[in-house]
Amino acid sequence: MRAVDIIAKKRDGGELSAAEIDFFIQGFVRDEIPDYQAAAWLMAVYLRGMSRQETIDLTMAMARSGRMLDLRGITPRVVDKHSTGGVGDKTTIVVAPLVASTGLPVGKMSGRALSFTGGTLDKLESIPGFRADITTAEFLAQLQAVGLVVCGQTADLAPADGKLYALRDVTATVGCLPLIASSIMSKKIASGAQAIVLDVKVGHGAFMKTKEEATALARLMVEIGQGVGRQVRAILSNMDQPLGRAVGNALELKEALDTLHGHGPHEFLEHCLNVAGQMLILGGKAQDIEEARAILLEVLHSGQALAKFREWMAAQGGDLAAVDDPSRLPQAAIVQDVHAPRAGYVAGIDAREVGLTAMLLGAGRARKGDPVDHAVGLLLQAKIGDYVERGAPLLTIHANDGHKLAQAQEKLLAAYTWSEEPIEAPPLVYEII
Amino acid sequence: MRAVDIIAKKRDGGELSAAEIDFFIQGFVRDEIPDYQAAAWLMAVYLRGMSRQETIDLTMAMARSGRMLDLRGITPRVVDKHSTGGVGDKTTIVVAPLVASTGLPVGKMSGRALSFTGGTLDKLESIPGFRADITTAEFLAQLQAVGLVVCGQTADLAPADGKLYALRDVTATVGCLPLIASSIMSKKIASGAQAIVLDVKVGHGAFMKTKEEATALARLMVEIGQGVGRQVRAILSNMDQPLGRAVGNALELKEALDTLHGHGPHEFLEHCLNVAGQMLILGGKAQDIEEARAILLEVLHSGQALAKFREWMAAQGGDLAAVDDPSRLPQAAIVQDVHAPRAGYVAGIDAREVGLTAMLLGAGRARKGDPVDHAVGLLLQAKIGDYVERGAPLLTIHANDGHKLAQAQEKLLAAYTWSEEPIEAPPLVYEII
Repeated sequence: MRAVDIIAKKRDGGELSAAEIDFFIQGFVRDEIPDYQAAAWLMAVYLRGMSRQETIDLTMAMARSGRMLDLRGITPRVVDKHSTGGVGDKTTIVVAPLVASTGLPVGKMSGRALSFTGGTLDKLESIPGFRADITTAEFLAQLQAVGLVVCGQTADLAPADGKLYALRDVTATVGCLPLIASSIMSKKIASGAQAIVLDVKVGHGAFMKTKEEATALARLMVEIGQGVGRQVRAILSNMDQPLGRAVGNALELKEALDTLHGHGPHEFLEHCLNVAGQMLILGGKAQDIEEARAILLEVLHSGQALAKFREWMAAQGGDLAAVDDPSRLPQAAIVQDVHAPRAGYVAGIDAREVGLTAMLLGAGRARKGDPVDHAVGLLLQAKIGDYVERGAPLLTIHANDGHKLAQAQEKLLAAYTWSEEPIEAPPLVYEII
Repeated sequence: MRAVDIIAKKRDGGELSAAEIDFFIQGFVRDEIPDYQAAAWLMAVYLRGMSRQETIDLTMAMARSGRMLDLRGITPRVVDKHSTGGVGDKTTIVVAPLVASTGLPVGKMSGRALSFTGGTLDKLESIPGFRADITTAEFLAQLQAVGLVVCGQTADLAPADGKLYALRDVTATVGCLPLIASSIMSKKIASGAQAIVLDVKVGHGAFMKTKEEATALARLMVEIGQGVGRQVRAILSNMDQPLGRAVGNALELKEALDTLHGHGPHEFLEHCLNVAGQMLILGGKAQDIEEARAILLEVLHSGQALAKFREWMAAQGGDLAAVDDPSRLPQAAIVQDVHAPRAGYVAGIDAREVGLTAMLLGAGRARKGDPVDHAVGLLLQAKIGDYVERGAPLLTIHANDGHKLAQAQEKLLAAYTWSEEPIEAPPLVYEII
């Protein structure tokens, strides 16, 4: 087998065999197939597409490119969750302790902020001392002892995916469904998930801008799961406006804590119950979403979920004093309200622009490895459908730089659209696949 | 400007501007744009194509990536020729002295054997002492003094083309008309040609297998020429069977010498007169092909062309004793006739298979840099349309290895097809564009 022949076959629209895909991926991860051949192959895949079977084979080839965790010794069924990325998405921070406190272990590898999207690990690191980078041995020990661990992906899991993603980023081959789906699924499979709930975001503040694209991605990932013997359920959720009210690391962490205390934003709690509910169903803890919600509301209101959150933080080095008193979380130097320039119903809040503004303030990163400022961000006082009087507080900016504050204010006001007529809030969930 | 945006634009089928193409090519040749980005771009170009204007801009960007020779100080009009490559194609060795002896200077950069095609430089190096690799200064001095020089391409001419071609070779992006056309034309333009006669081969033994492909390539190169102010004429010539009778370096050199002596194969001389005739027309030495042929036959029969050949060899170090007595050229240890396995008319001689067999004998190279054996090759005793009795000599193999001889014999017999009915010889030239 020769790499150039595999490139030519895909270039001409042929369907690659499992053996050809495996040869290419393992050769690439061992540096036997150079970047330039992989780049040409990626562009051919981008423009020619991949069949369902090719996508399944690519997923497994990437999963097998490194260590494959087997968590069945710890629990009969490990349920994972994954979000395709949005703005204000602190779902994992609430869902993980909710689910774990019902007795279903959650061992999850998570990501960092990039471009307009935030990252769960950066949000968790708002808590002084929290360690996101732990070893595989620590991961397994904590999953056994606490039943809950969220950490960075270890380098030995699906290394082909990381290497291929870095190449896609600089060769204009990121936005390709089979490559996106196999990238997500390969990591989940390598990290030992038996069942996976996918939170597929659709809208301005998501990578998938239309329901059609998001549905296609969700279907493809469910099919990959079926093809490799994993249960996968996908929730198509709205990301036209930010999720919840807080955008920014410590601000989002505080909103997650508020939610675990029972007084978070209603629509964010609903989203968490949807995601956690599906995890309980796949994990065999509930027959249907009603039963699942009842169990989840029980662990929420009894304080068990919050207790699990504290136990989790303690296990990963997080400062419990900051958990118990969020005023000890990083605080921005400048906190300033932005007032509504007119009266009316909020018709839209461009989530992507909000995410980019948070990045501008320092909450996110333009490129991998940049530092983040945990304190900065913003709180939305009004969301789509709310009526606001002229001059009423519209949002609050938390900044550490006066110049950036002014820029952020201008960009955020421009992110809002208005209506004279009442506007219905968008649905949280479009569809469950 | 960012390379990744230029890749994305071409990926989506956009038309690149001259500035974008120049940014990409100059960045690539300076190693600022890495191979993997160029590879992704090449695949996008392969699958999305290029407009005429993009192809012209790419040609000029590659030509300008290195030194641009200006030969107008030596002669008002320099006419170059280029063959797209075939089997048994020793045309340059005859055409260059023919044209130069009419007073029209010929300064040409030529190539080496690769895969099933031979290379003019390897054929010339059959003559002991011949130096193909000369400096640009030597090139210019010899062009001035002798009016004839054929050498290897110097590294400072169109370096982007060489670098890009090496990448195309390993990324399955060779067979793409805009890339082929711009590659050929950029080198010709950088080497100072004002007018160019292109010998576009079509058939089994050529890179273009069909008349449609070859016509498209020829048209595109003529259009590039028009777009950059060069006169270009393309001759579409048949390459279903080898050109002439000899295939192999010294054997072809001897056939070229025979032709200059006036007793070469008739159809090969005709082909040379066609190519040289168009060069004379573009060079302003003749009004039409009839006048051009008369001039060329005059310099051929008077011995002026042969004299120019000797002068040329002397200038580049070739041993004149071998020119005057071809028995001093490299000779193979084994010379063996292959006899016709049946009686009939020769219906086809697969030129590609003949070329690959010559390579197997050692006359060509599978990869760049491999050594070649100048002595080995074959002579065809019968060509398409000839009637052959069973057992009559069909061809003669010149080999230096008994095992390879046996393999070659089997492959060559399989390259012949036969007919009971008379067969017309294929036309030499299909069309002049």
